[in-house]
Amino acid sequence: MIKISIIGFGNVGRHLADAFEDGVDTELVQVFSRSGNSGSLPYSDRIVTKSEELKPADLYIISVSDRAVAEVSENLPFSDRLVVHTAGSLAIDVLDGRNRRGVFYPLQTFSKDKAVNFSKVPICIEAQSSEDFQLLQTVAKTLAEQVFPIDSEQRSALHVSAVFVSNFVNHLYKVGSDICEEHQMPFDILKPLIAETADKIVTLSPRQAQTGPAIRGDRNTMDAHLSLLSDTNQKKIYELLSSSIKNER
Amino acid sequence: MIKISIIGFGNVGRHLADAFEDGVDTELVQVFSRSGNSGSLPYSDRIVTKSEELKPADLYIISVSDRAVAEVSENLPFSDRLVVHTAGSLAIDVLDGRNRRGVFYPLQTFSKDKAVNFSKVPICIEAQSSEDFQLLQTVAKTLAEQVFPIDSEQRSALHVSAVFVSNFVNHLYKVGSDICEEHQMPFDILKPLIAETADKIVTLSPRQAQTGPAIRGDRNTMDAHLSLLSDTNQKKIYELLSSSIKNER
Repeated sequence: MIKISIIGFGNVGRHLADAFEDGVDTELVQVFSRSGNSGSLPYSDRIVTKSEELKPADLYIISVSDRAVAEVSENLPFSDRLVVHTAGSLAIDVLDGRNRRGVFYPLQTFSKDKAVNFSKVPICIEAQSSEDFQLLQTVAKTLAEQVFPIDSEQRSALHVSAVFVSNFVNHLYKVGSDICEEHQMPFDILKPLIAETADKIVTLSPRQAQTGPAIRGDRNTMDAHLSLLSDTNQKKIYELLSSSIKNER
Repeated sequence: MIKISIIGFGNVGRHLADAFEDGVDTELVQVFSRSGNSGSLPYSDRIVTKSEELKPADLYIISVSDRAVAEVSENLPFSDRLVVHTAGSLAIDVLDGRNRRGVFYPLQTFSKDKAVNFSKVPICIEAQSSEDFQLLQTVAKTLAEQVFPIDSEQRSALHVSAVFVSNFVNHLYKVGSDICEEHQMPFDILKPLIAETADKIVTLSPRQAQTGPAIRGDRNTMDAHLSLLSDTNQKKIYELLSSSIKNER
């Protein structure tokens, strides 16, 4: 059994705690959360509110907000243990050097209200020794089908690309939804198209999958679309992304 | 049996012909394609290359490129029959008035290399009489679970919103793929995130589903991302979409 404690109890921490609690090869030792707990969880007896209460474990996973990671790691009252963070945008060396450092980055979008199937979440790991790397790999493989060794520089780039394919993509869904609402159509009408668009790139490259007026160079349709949009911001997005698609040809 | 002929044999025409050929309540009478055929299709004996060869049918579906729809409909050598187009961006009245006009718009992204499950494609229909609307509805329901009455003005708006949630979304996948390639990471690593991002909005509204540095107002992360992007165009997209997300709050 690999003994794991979770530090921070936001979306990622909560999902990880649930997964390790259920795991056959992992033992959830404690969850450290400054705000305590509601008492409704199976492991509510192991939720602690002070870092002094943290017991020995094989691995401490810090999953607090990005800006708090450095401070939280500095305030841990022990040394020479394996401490990792889960932040896509942070390098390994933001962690305090008294402990052995690592990164355990599940590349997924977590929402409180939606369960995540962890087996489908790729986990990107980094460590400073092969022993620690090995342990992180073992833990990651208890959760995930896909585990990737990704260094801090690659992870920054990965985090940016995740913003494009997830945060920005979701915002385009929002724009589509706004346009439907403005014209008294249900957003549901777009959902099969959204699903198919995502599904296509499982088998086609994004380049092969590209369709629409911009890639065809169909200026008439693009002008008609622009004249139909009443929102200046939507017009700007339409123009910039269309011109970016055209230059891709 | 409803007798249907398809005019134009691009992606949409081909998918519709396949579906009507397989349908129990539909009969594929003919397919009109100027360039003829390869002879490998089950209905290759019914492919004609001249509009004069078109036999009587209950419904003619024009699925040629948007700019050719008007001319093709003008050149049909008959009148008072039901002729529809499949173009999201065209009004019903681009069709020649000698025939009864209608629209049969399957809202989906069609690629030659990927089969489409038509039952999941919403079909948007419009007609000028209730009898014709009824016939289109019957035909649409033989293919699709969801059929929506959508007038020409709504359809234009719908087509624009489809550009946002499909063409532009796919382009953001392309940007993500380019960034991965530049940093020697496989695009596969992003695919679960892409799938989850699309899946989320089946149950959450795009507003509820929005995550990332822009919605959190996390300027540090955004600046770090911008400094990491080497491509001016990618920077512009990052800035515009981030600011659009911020204003959504």
